[in-house]
Amino acid sequence: MSLIPTDDLIVRLRSRGLSRVALQFPAGLKREAWPVASALREAGFEVVISGDPCYGACDLDRDALALAEVLVHFGHAPVEERENVIYETVRSVIDVGALAAALPLLSGRSLGLVTTVQHVHQIDEMAAFLEEQGFRVSVAPGDGRAPLCGQVLGCNFQAARSTGAEEILYVGTGLFHPIGVQLATKARVIALDPYTGAAEEVDASRLIRRRFAVMEKARDAESIGIIVSTKSGQQRLDLARRLVLLSERAVLVTMREVCPDELLNLGFDCYVNTACPRLAYDDQVRFPAPVLSPAEFEIICGIRSFDDYIIDEFLSA
Amino acid sequence: MSLIPTDDLIVRLRSRGLSRVALQFPAGLKREAWPVASALREAGFEVVISGDPCYGACDLDRDALALAEVLVHFGHAPVEERENVIYETVRSVIDVGALAAALPLLSGRSLGLVTTVQHVHQIDEMAAFLEEQGFRVSVAPGDGRAPLCGQVLGCNFQAARSTGAEEILYVGTGLFHPIGVQLATKARVIALDPYTGAAEEVDASRLIRRRFAVMEKARDAESIGIIVSTKSGQQRLDLARRLVLLSERAVLVTMREVCPDELLNLGFDCYVNTACPRLAYDDQVRFPAPVLSPAEFEIICGIRSFDDYIIDEFLSA
Repeated sequence: MSLIPTDDLIVRLRSRGLSRVALQFPAGLKREAWPVASALREAGFEVVISGDPCYGACDLDRDALALAEVLVHFGHAPVEERENVIYETVRSVIDVGALAAALPLLSGRSLGLVTTVQHVHQIDEMAAFLEEQGFRVSVAPGDGRAPLCGQVLGCNFQAARSTGAEEILYVGTGLFHPIGVQLATKARVIALDPYTGAAEEVDASRLIRRRFAVMEKARDAESIGIIVSTKSGQQRLDLARRLVLLSERAVLVTMREVCPDELLNLGFDCYVNTACPRLAYDDQVRFPAPVLSPAEFEIICGIRSFDDYIIDEFLSA
Repeated sequence: MSLIPTDDLIVRLRSRGLSRVALQFPAGLKREAWPVASALREAGFEVVISGDPCYGACDLDRDALALAEVLVHFGHAPVEERENVIYETVRSVIDVGALAAALPLLSGRSLGLVTTVQHVHQIDEMAAFLEEQGFRVSVAPGDGRAPLCGQVLGCNFQAARSTGAEEILYVGTGLFHPIGVQLATKARVIALDPYTGAAEEVDASRLIRRRFAVMEKARDAESIGIIVSTKSGQQRLDLARRLVLLSERAVLVTMREVCPDELLNLGFDCYVNTACPRLAYDDQVRFPAPVLSPAEFEIICGIRSFDDYIIDEFLSA
């Protein structure tokens, strides 16, 4: 039995006269691949599952699509519209009463509100709950890459920035998004995990200290690989080509998956990551060499000042 | 300093008027990427390195090529000719006197001789040495996928089969190739490691017993992923589509890298591998579920007999 309903999807596929379907799931939903495929197969479709890693709609599997008429991408809102790609959001329903746990940590009565794609369908309900408690709540549109109102991505905090708020409540799991919100907005940020009810004020300073240590290690690098992603929505080639010109010791390196083994095999003293921004921040402990963000590389090349440290984002032009 | 000479390559690239070059190295030569790139960069070329895993000429990096005018693929003979791909063999020179260590293990005076791509430039020298010792040596052409005389691949043993010999000497490292030679030819096979001088008669029976145990584990699978590679020279789509029809519990799964984490995430009870044949044989211990070869899947589906067990090969049509 699939946890993801397929009846409506089957109706839509049939109404478009489609019979060969590719399915793509993010890591956390991969186990749904077989039940969903099985339901579609029983309904008469030819099915192919994308078995490669996937962490966002920035990574549409064009290879799987090449074997089908349409790619159904589960779990993420579009970062770009593409012909023959259907985005199937997978919603998680929370009890908005859980937001009460964050209230004692808020310092004012006015706040911005952001969340991630699986909760964004409840953003109005969350805002209404907070307003009932006496807060003025600002929810703002994102940009093209995070198109839903109040939605942030690990690489796009525009919906937080656009609130203009000095205090922002992030509803979701993990601390990467709220730390990104803090770095992108300079606001005070409270993170609330809607499942555990845990609330805390986030502190980006530890991340910054860690990043400056990584930058120091990278200073003496004799060889620098400027990573260019080959994923559908992660290729910043112009940026990479601009960065490679900053050092005679740098060269472009294309990668599908930026993983420790391959960085080790290549053996560069340092890498600069123009693929998914989270990789440099989240996975440094797993990497065999410093992996810098574009802005961090600019700092060690002397063309950006320490005070201009920014978090790396994919912003729509 | 590059261990791989670049002067001649630079002359050839210039003579073709090329200025944007993508470089691809197999795992064992990845550390040469920066020295080679650096030499080309100094010579005025724009360079991009393929940072993805690569284990053969069956895996040409089309994504890196898309950013350049030509892809220079190091270390492998072509498995297919492609426009804008230059194959740069990387030769290893051995002392053919090392072959003497294999002689006491040979039972007759007549033998077939095979080796791998990095040694195949010395195949005539090896044959001459053996003939001086009183042996009749047969060296045979491969097929389109392993085009050099006497060359075997982990997925192609045609050059061994074509010798028609009842005893075959394999010169090279590792035991996978000679075991494959034995399964493909039914000949007696002696493996000689030219670096250590270690010689041994190979025995495929342990591999076979292990494979039959894996097949038994796969019998009760409720879900079966038929893996289709998306690499340039590993996609056997017709085969995969034929296999998926053998079971209602099967579905196609596309993969770039067949790796344990992704198999675990997908959670199928069993997989059938139509990508690089070695994966099923070599990496089973790392995989979270049985990974069968096409013929093994046919056996558990009852359309092939146990006695017809064959090793999986990519043979030219």
